[in-house]
Amino acid sequence: MSGVWGKKIQYSIFGESHGAAIGITISGLPAGIKLDMEHIRKEMQRRAPGSSDLVTPRKEEDNVEILSGYFEEHTTGTPLCAIIRNKNTQSKDYSNLRYAMRPGHADYSGRMKYKGFNDFRGSGHFSGRITAGLVFAGAIAKQILKSQGIEIISHVHSIHTIKDKPFELTGISQELFDKLANSAFPVIDDTVAEEMKQCIRKAKEEQDSVGGVVECAILNVPAGVGDPFFDSIESTLAHLLFSVPAVKAVEFGRGFEISTLKGSQANDPYYIDNGTIKTSSNNNGGIIGGITNGMPIIFRCAIKPTASISQEQKTVDIIKMENTTLKVEGRHDPCIVPRVLPVIEAVSALAILDRL
Amino acid sequence: MSGVWGKKIQYSIFGESHGAAIGITISGLPAGIKLDMEHIRKEMQRRAPGSSDLVTPRKEEDNVEILSGYFEEHTTGTPLCAIIRNKNTQSKDYSNLRYAMRPGHADYSGRMKYKGFNDFRGSGHFSGRITAGLVFAGAIAKQILKSQGIEIISHVHSIHTIKDKPFELTGISQELFDKLANSAFPVIDDTVAEEMKQCIRKAKEEQDSVGGVVECAILNVPAGVGDPFFDSIESTLAHLLFSVPAVKAVEFGRGFEISTLKGSQANDPYYIDNGTIKTSSNNNGGIIGGITNGMPIIFRCAIKPTASISQEQKTVDIIKMENTTLKVEGRHDPCIVPRVLPVIEAVSALAILDRL
Amino acid sequence: MSGVWGKKIQYSIFGESHGAAIGITISGLPAGIKLDMEHIRKEMQRRAPGSSDLVTPRKEEDNVEILSGYFEEHTTGTPLCAIIRNKNTQSKDYSNLRYAMRPGHADYSGRMKYKGFNDFRGSGHFSGRITAGLVFAGAIAKQILKSQGIEIISHVHSIHTIKDKPFELTGISQELFDKLANSAFPVIDDTVAEEMKQCIRKAKEEQDSVGGVVECAILNVPAGVGDPFFDSIESTLAHLLFSVPAVKAVEFGRGFEISTLKGSQANDPYYIDNGTIKTSSNNNGGIIGGITNGMPIIFRCAIKPTASISQEQKTVDIIKMENTTLKVEGRHDPCIVPRVLPVIEAVSALAILDRL
Amino acid sequence: MSGVWGKKIQYSIFGESHGAAIGITISGLPAGIKLDMEHIRKEMQRRAPGSSDLVTPRKEEDNVEILSGYFEEHTTGTPLCAIIRNKNTQSKDYSNLRYAMRPGHADYSGRMKYKGFNDFRGSGHFSGRITAGLVFAGAIAKQILKSQGIEIISHVHSIHTIKDKPFELTGISQELFDKLANSAFPVIDDTVAEEMKQCIRKAKEEQDSVGGVVECAILNVPAGVGDPFFDSIESTLAHLLFSVPAVKAVEFGRGFEISTLKGSQANDPYYIDNGTIKTSSNNNGGIIGGITNGMPIIFRCAIKPTASISQEQKTVDIIKMENTTLKVEGRHDPCIVPRVLPVIEAVSALAILDRL
Repeated sequence: MSGVWGKKIQYSIFGESHGAAIGITISGLPAGIKLDMEHIRKEMQRRAPGSSDLVTPRKEEDNVEILSGYFEEHTTGTPLCAIIRNKNTQSKDYSNLRYAMRPGHADYSGRMKYKGFNDFRGSGHFSGRITAGLVFAGAIAKQILKSQGIEIISHVHSIHTIKDKPFELTGISQELFDKLANSAFPVIDDTVAEEMKQCIRKAKEEQDSVGGVVECAILNVPAGVGDPFFDSIESTLAHLLFSVPAVKAVEFGRGFEISTLKGSQANDPYYIDNGTIKTSSNNNGGIIGGITNGMPIIFRCAIKPTASISQEQKTVDIIKMENTTLKVEGRHDPCIVPRVLPVIEAVSALAILDRL
Repeated sequence: MSGVWGKKIQYSIFGESHGAAIGITISGLPAGIKLDMEHIRKEMQRRAPGSSDLVTPRKEEDNVEILSGYFEEHTTGTPLCAIIRNKNTQSKDYSNLRYAMRPGHADYSGRMKYKGFNDFRGSGHFSGRITAGLVFAGAIAKQILKSQGIEIISHVHSIHTIKDKPFELTGISQELFDKLANSAFPVIDDTVAEEMKQCIRKAKEEQDSVGGVVECAILNVPAGVGDPFFDSIESTLAHLLFSVPAVKAVEFGRGFEISTLKGSQANDPYYIDNGTIKTSSNNNGGIIGGITNGMPIIFRCAIKPTASISQEQKTVDIIKMENTTLKVEGRHDPCIVPRVLPVIEAVSALAILDRL
Repeated sequence: MSGVWGKKIQYSIFGESHGAAIGITISGLPAGIKLDMEHIRKEMQRRAPGSSDLVTPRKEEDNVEILSGYFEEHTTGTPLCAIIRNKNTQSKDYSNLRYAMRPGHADYSGRMKYKGFNDFRGSGHFSGRITAGLVFAGAIAKQILKSQGIEIISHVHSIHTIKDKPFELTGISQELFDKLANSAFPVIDDTVAEEMKQCIRKAKEEQDSVGGVVECAILNVPAGVGDPFFDSIESTLAHLLFSVPAVKAVEFGRGFEISTLKGSQANDPYYIDNGTIKTSSNNNGGIIGGITNGMPIIFRCAIKPTASISQEQKTVDIIKMENTTLKVEGRHDPCIVPRVLPVIEAVSALAILDRL
Repeated sequence: MSGVWGKKIQYSIFGESHGAAIGITISGLPAGIKLDMEHIRKEMQRRAPGSSDLVTPRKEEDNVEILSGYFEEHTTGTPLCAIIRNKNTQSKDYSNLRYAMRPGHADYSGRMKYKGFNDFRGSGHFSGRITAGLVFAGAIAKQILKSQGIEIISHVHSIHTIKDKPFELTGISQELFDKLANSAFPVIDDTVAEEMKQCIRKAKEEQDSVGGVVECAILNVPAGVGDPFFDSIESTLAHLLFSVPAVKAVEFGRGFEISTLKGSQANDPYYIDNGTIKTSSNNNGGIIGGITNGMPIIFRCAIKPTASISQEQKTVDIIKMENTTLKVEGRHDPCIVPRVLPVIEAVSALAILDRL
């Protein structure tokens, strides 16, 4: 009942962290798109591990092989399947996961769902690595959206308790857009970046991890996109965002804060700006009644701290059915937030493209 | 591309506030369920207007007529269509909505989507009234879930800035469950109820409105329900929750707050309790890797303040394409939160039933 | 898992022959279509009973009430639900169907599926009457297709062993189109009509029934519509055609006969006719590789003889689990073919519209 | 809008004849199935080319590599992706297909759909080779069905005008089942096999091709499977059967012939046989009202003669837009029927498994 998403275009995801390969099949892509392979490579690289001291040292090149649906540098319109071989796998690290359930990981819930048959090595199908397929598909979706003027940008809204400035809800300057697009650790307020990085390094030293919040903006979506029931823009975005491992909360526009406003404050007044209808505030994040109103779509996602930590943790031995403790060895990301930014952008692109 | 939701059971919603009728068709219901019509009536009544001074005085009985799929007091297994006739409609109230776009309402986004052909009277298909069909379907889903031991309960987590106590994430006592289930304005901390109600009445006096947060718990879902991609329990619940008008944010477990914890704090340690695997904290809200772990599923939704307020507001005249002002006459809910509780519970029931 | 069909537009069907009403909800219709209510009424009338001595005398007006999605004579773009009340129901005729399974009817297969809870009166959800909703939806689909130049026409290809001439596969003259469109019993060769009618009347006298074959042509579909896997035009049409009660076979172009041709005979040679690519034969019925080639789409469906006959038949008593006999009293169609023509055309319209 | 099929289990197909690889991803397989790799290999071999002088000499081993969803010899329950590398490709054979449209092939219809961007080499995504993925998935489906007692068998019902005996509709002996299951060219009447083979060899000599009819039986499906609307067993089977290249007609039970029977002949009388309800005839092919009645499901498909023939054929040059002639060089199957049998069985298995 799952593994496939999309109405206009369908994405079929597959793979385990330590299996032969991971990948995605995209059915329903328009024919004749000249894929920007350099753009795809850059997006893949943003998510790939090993790029800085803030992330896992596990080195993976994430080389994509396109098996079908691509001919003479263009999409053919038939299903496009792309795979990434798994190479740098250290299965020995994971041998005790057969019985000791890692807290915060899907070891137990996955075991219950799959009756113990799931590939537990490196979290298997639950590994963040599986999102590489989403980033690949998202890179293509972004390219298609960009050809229609639609762009997606995100920044590190917070790491642990350290906060960046939020987006202006009513609009994002080209200058800011470019700055964020060209940064490996994009923040609006440059003064907080180093503090955030120190926080991540400190967590690593403590054999611990930290989480954060990602804020994302989708720009230039025309008014009138989405549905009241059941495929509102919020529903569609949230559906995919909550499929990204570690996302635990999603809010649009002012989000939870809107519940503390009066109607007279929360309602976004319309006005005419050079023949275009705009709103002077954007508390609703560009979406009213599930449908876009032409203002920027802005949302935030909470990313929980990486579940993999080297500290000893309490848990259970599922075979012996007794309490035990566990130390998760291996190479972990002390903070997944920098690598999750391109995934958030990617699934946002898939969501918008499917509603357009 | 919309109007229908569900994989195991499919819900097809229809209706406009001032049309002939609203309703829902449920395809794929199991045959042989003896419907508890008194339970259905009570759930419908919780959402219906006119029940107290806190809500709109628009009186509607919301009498459901079942047209199909129901025979000799049992479901037949064939599609069950239920309709509610629209009676107490005052279309004259809405005549100026042809041109003046109400801020906070879907008048403009809907007009752009439907090219001006949508029924604008009383918000048409965007009216909260359309959720009556969801409450009907949810009442049946709740009955089915209850027969499997699964129960859903919610409370008013906040009104404007006034907060109730939150749920204990690791469990809810039967006593609390019963108290909330039998209250028209359910709160955990009884001392805040009156303050909340005063806040709502004050907003009404000021021709304004307030919002709030609803917290909901789904109890006794077994471990192993849901999917990693793309139909995680969070994805499925959020998809439906964001289809409920006025919901602007959804968070699970500790929600946004989990981003401020360290991994060593956020990970929920497993332990064995009388032969059952539990977690000693429940920061993940009963869901790990998109799949249930047997702990309570707990989430919160932000409900924005009712968009309909009687104050004069700035907006645009869409025909003349010029700035104007608008006063929305008519009978409004100063706060939609009490009436939205059964809707939140209803769609939660639909979501869980579809993944079981 | 059923009751709803369609990707671009979704059709949700409901109703039982002797319940309160039957109907259909159409989600995803474009906004702003001015419905041709006279055209809809005529299409409904073609399927309705009581129109001649060849069909059941059960009189039903099949008056459609549109409950939603229709405002100021245009579609709104929101779900359009249409219902037809059941009036002329004689439930007493069907009392023995609780235990005696009618041969050729879905009494037994339906009872097994629905565990005995289905509404058995007048065949319930299996009644041909449920197709009235399809004819309604098809009338709208035909109107949309016609606005794009696409037209659908059918004729009685055979009744029992009496055969009409088949369509020329490469094209249908306007004259023939008009003749068939304006006939209550459309045949190409006028000399066979009376013989066919006599055959039907004779079956009626003998308390028996006859079947036939319907041939249908869909004209002016542009080349390039359909998919190789899995939504070929043949797949899509056949899926809906085999949902129409009594259809037991479907063939495209030369159909089964193509298996007796050599490749050199079966391949349809292309040629250029006034700048347009055509084929000089059309053995493939306008579809190659699941995709249209611009030639007429032509297919035939076998319609089995009406299962309801007044003769005594052997069957089983499902309660006593013993052999018994049964006489099905009531008002039956001696031949369903004339009334099934508009249903075949209707579902063909839905199929093509969903792939365009 | 295509490339993916299935409700309970979803099959996502991909690949082109001369691309890097073809394959299929299966989402929703139950966890814990020990795959019978020898059975899978045998099924693949039945479809593979090069096995006899009746089929194309193109040699392909069709070695399947499973990339995901398979661990320690069992299905994991997560998406299972299987690929087959394309090796023995002679792209030079296909160079003139850029402009000369092969009659009977999807060159023109595909070009119109994909705007000229589809991979035309070896028919690309339209190649019969793509069905290898279906045979792989079908082999797994057959294994699951067999564990529930359900079996599928087929035979060559006819080649050109030479006919085998048909199945007895009411049942198939174990002896016949075993004979057909163990034959590379399965027929009921052994005396016709050699004549059929001679017919195929003669067509090959004449640089021509022949078609035929496949008859298939699905045994031991319990009564009560399927839906009246829209997922009848006939609809589901036909949907997939008409996705198999070269299938132009499908009929169930007596098929077209049922239209020449009277109701008193066509209705299958029920009787009790040792406590089991059966029908004494099976004109409806085991399906009434779209739902199984416990009798064998029997159907026939027309397979058109192979479109690829070496004779000179009339066609058009799509670039110059002028009439021309074409000789299709290369290694062709003079008759696809023997290799299509396992494909028909495979998609039948997918169809039944999805409705169970």
